[in-house]
Amino acid sequence: MTDIMSREIQLVSRPNGMPTAANFAIATTKLEPLQEGQVLVRNLYMSVDPYMRGRMSDRKSYVPPFALGKPLDGGAVGEVIESHAKEFKQGDVVISSLGWREYFIAAPKALHLVSPDIQPLSVYLGALGMTGMTAWAGLNLVEVKDGDVIFISGAAGAVGSIAGQLAKLRGCRVIGTAGSAEKVKFLQEECGFDIAFNYKTAPIIEQLNQAVPDGIDVYFDNVGGETLEAALSVLRTYGRIIACGGISGYNEESPQAGPSNLFNMITKRLTMKGLIVSDFLDLQDKFEQEVGSYFRDGKLKNKETVVVGIDQAVSAFIGLFAGKNIGKMVVKLD
Amino acid sequence: MTDIMSREIQLVSRPNGMPTAANFAIATTKLEPLQEGQVLVRNLYMSVDPYMRGRMSDRKSYVPPFALGKPLDGGAVGEVIESHAKEFKQGDVVISSLGWREYFIAAPKALHLVSPDIQPLSVYLGALGMTGMTAWAGLNLVEVKDGDVIFISGAAGAVGSIAGQLAKLRGCRVIGTAGSAEKVKFLQEECGFDIAFNYKTAPIIEQLNQAVPDGIDVYFDNVGGETLEAALSVLRTYGRIIACGGISGYNEESPQAGPSNLFNMITKRLTMKGLIVSDFLDLQDKFEQEVGSYFRDGKLKNKETVVVGIDQAVSAFIGLFAGKNIGKMVVKLD
Repeated sequence: MTDIMSREIQLVSRPNGMPTAANFAIATTKLEPLQEGQVLVRNLYMSVDPYMRGRMSDRKSYVPPFALGKPLDGGAVGEVIESHAKEFKQGDVVISSLGWREYFIAAPKALHLVSPDIQPLSVYLGALGMTGMTAWAGLNLVEVKDGDVIFISGAAGAVGSIAGQLAKLRGCRVIGTAGSAEKVKFLQEECGFDIAFNYKTAPIIEQLNQAVPDGIDVYFDNVGGETLEAALSVLRTYGRIIACGGISGYNEESPQAGPSNLFNMITKRLTMKGLIVSDFLDLQDKFEQEVGSYFRDGKLKNKETVVVGIDQAVSAFIGLFAGKNIGKMVVKLD
Repeated sequence: MTDIMSREIQLVSRPNGMPTAANFAIATTKLEPLQEGQVLVRNLYMSVDPYMRGRMSDRKSYVPPFALGKPLDGGAVGEVIESHAKEFKQGDVVISSLGWREYFIAAPKALHLVSPDIQPLSVYLGALGMTGMTAWAGLNLVEVKDGDVIFISGAAGAVGSIAGQLAKLRGCRVIGTAGSAEKVKFLQEECGFDIAFNYKTAPIIEQLNQAVPDGIDVYFDNVGGETLEAALSVLRTYGRIIACGGISGYNEESPQAGPSNLFNMITKRLTMKGLIVSDFLDLQDKFEQEVGSYFRDGKLKNKETVVVGIDQAVSAFIGLFAGKNIGKMVVKLD
């Protein structure tokens, strides 16, 4: 192995409110020589996800905060360049949580082998990756079933677009909201949503009441805020809420007030359940089998917004909060 | 049957904010002659409960609003004065939802026979009545079990005091909050709470952090507002919330903001479930058997605050919102 120079993105200061380019730096690191039992991987695609914003703040949460002056991490798909471990050979395609860098050396247990037959390989960051599994786990968490009316916010995003398509495959009536006419069209024409609307063009509660005068059974929440409040208002008795994300509040400098109508939890006997996909890793094979089968059969679209080059990763990440992605935002490493 | 004159309390205007005596009137009604298949009942005790406040506003909810110019209704224990129905005989003790009046005539299906062996009969409005069953159903709803640490707000109230005692009987560590030193003493000395504190003497979150530095598994919410926010902060991963009441907000003139830290639902994978006791009426026999047995064995205290006379019912009801009750507030009809 000759010297490998790997570019990586580091967090250099913690964002206060919306992250800016100044919170990040690009650095070049020379990798150590490969040791026995180690694998050298070149990343092909890396993931940028809204949840990473939480890790940029220094507070206790379900994953530790990113360290300053160190590379960020997150989902990535790569190919094995050289292996000194019996578990992998050159050319293998692997997923890892060592994104935000071009190359890395790791032990086999940090890698998960995937089939290169499915293309583009970035699907392992989307429909068949963490965001797809989040959608799938969320529907299972509150037992979404045939006949349910489900409302999905952030519906054109990586989680929402898969959740909606999976809900359609389960026989649900699916309503989604997104932030542009193009996204609404995507939901209606490509994802098969029964109704989709642009939350920016009129008050959410008005549009939602018009879309579902008889109410909803399930709310898949990716955004929080005003949309959660509207959903609480239209949920039917015994309705369920999948609390999956709250992107509307991730960049607020101080905590925002919660919905003023949370009392609906009582009067309608609602159930709200919080979801973190890492709780479901023991079901990964089941997920890959079920959702992989839908994908191979052409029943599930893995929409992506792809940017190219590690030097574009930060702007891709920041772009998530401006809704610049349709489907999964991924960075293709050149 | 001679003419029966019955005093009753009517709602004459809808409260805006805190109810006042002017929203109510006392009226005397002459009962119709008893028909075949009907039963005449004299109420002995009637219930005043915080949930009744919701029914005084004219809005859609899980029970219809009270009508203006008509008697209020609610739980009551009475004795059969005369029966023209085979199901009941004179002297029987019955519970009904026809409180706020001294006498009434009803069909048998509106009455539920109870044993007069348990005294005072007002226990059927408390530990063995709707509020006791609410406590019992709430613990079952989120599967409260041996070893759980449970925090209960409004703990000296009708629901909270029973919930805490039942939780102790299940082997839980029980923490409660109430609004006076006398109530705190009641929780510690009579109900066996492990820790109780007065939420008025220092910020709730501070007292709660001190009481449970390792967090709680379950929050039984009777009050909402700031206490819910504090509970969200101290709940452990996979914690559960019983959304039972929100008395802190019942008299607000406009909707109040929800907790600013609802995002804990996601990061801690919490479950919140709304509770209305009427969903569990099919379990009433099981409840009466289990909790009745605790009560008869002296394992469960049915603390009451009793006021006397139907003309005191309105002030007893309004007093609920000033925390004038310890345990169940009941009105003894003279």
